[in-house]
Amino acid sequence: MVGPEIERLMQLLSRLPGLGPRSARRVALHLVEKRETLLLPLAKALSAVGDSVKTCSVCGNFDSVDPCSICADPRRDQTILCVVEGVGSLWAMERAGVFSGRYHVLGGLLSALDGIGPDDLGLGRLRARLDGSIREVVVATPATVEGQTTAHYIADFLADCGITVSGLAHGVPVGGELDYLDDGTIGAALRARRSF
Amino acid sequence: MVGPEIERLMQLLSRLPGLGPRSARRVALHLVEKRETLLLPLAKALSAVGDSVKTCSVCGNFDSVDPCSICADPRRDQTILCVVEGVGSLWAMERAGVFSGRYHVLGGLLSALDGIGPDDLGLGRLRARLDGSIREVVVATPATVEGQTTAHYIADFLADCGITVSGLAHGVPVGGELDYLDDGTIGAALRARRSF
Ligand SMILES: [Zn+2]
Ligand SMILES: [Zn+2]
Repeated sequence: MVGPEIERLMQLLSRLPGLGPRSARRVALHLVEKRETLLLPLAKALSAVGDSVKTCSVCGNFDSVDPCSICADPRRDQTILCVVEGVGSLWAMERAGVFSGRYHVLGGLLSALDGIGPDDLGLGRLRARLDGSIREVVVATPATVEGQTTAHYIADFLADCGITVSGLAHGVPVGGELDYLDDGTIGAALRARRSF
Repeated sequence: MVGPEIERLMQLLSRLPGLGPRSARRVALHLVEKRETLLLPLAKALSAVGDSVKTCSVCGNFDSVDPCSICADPRRDQTILCVVEGVGSLWAMERAGVFSGRYHVLGGLLSALDGIGPDDLGLGRLRARLDGSIREVVVATPATVEGQTTAHYIADFLADCGITVSGLAHGVPVGGELDYLDDGTIGAALRARRSF
């Protein structure tokens, strides 16, 4: 009824987080109505991200350079690593502005339900980064069952490395995701981090 | 912090209806995570819509052909026109599957507040379409103050044309938009349409 191009656009939009078929239709209509001022700029912005953004081969962050600008920044503290579930958590930590070290992005959490085991998280790659200059690993996984299972697994996995493995303090709401947490809570949780 | 490309993407996404800065960030992250399977297909789909979709010069519908496939379809009833606020309402009428005539898209409603007067709605273009074959105009503007003001203005404007001007029956919820109405309500309102 709306033609194959708009149909295809609606179908892809409905796969975005938080958009169902109705909101996808509403967004598609808005985009068609604003072809010059919004649709074409958005198409360009998406292509630009697709062309330029890479996954950092060191930490797993997204950036237009590899290694990413955080890994390449000599002013960042080289002695502390923060392990996060995904880049959304890294962004949340950076917005909070309370962590000056570098990151390690797991790309997931241990989950028996989803069949994600230790091998899927590339923990060998994390261990390989612990070359002697790193003195502490802060595991900033979410305060969910899977997040805390993952944190304890990592603490055990690194137990023989002779470095401190810590976790964010209470303050992260239980059951809550890290990505959308307010900066103050993230800051408090980082300052009160505790050794496993 | 996320680089200029992702920053620009977030900024454009936050201009979509229903998306605030937080959900724009979440959508951007999802797109970057799914670069191959979602971001690039979406960029292509947007470009395809931008390249192919035009505004029908007869009725104001969006389609990849001009005149649109509804205007060009000889099986549609040529004796009845449905006047709608925008293409979203046209889509809602078509989804309901209860109207077999053709459309006229106003592109807005009379609004003293927004400074939209009769000249801005191109009612001359509507009048020019009433060439003798059209016997009825159904004004399907929303059941809001502005929608009903517009409907009555159009009824007066066409009063000397010697054709029936009708409006959707009660059934459209008062204060409600047409775009997201369920098919049954739209069908009932159309069947019980009344002459002004
Ligand atoms: Zn990096
Ligand atoms: Zn048309």
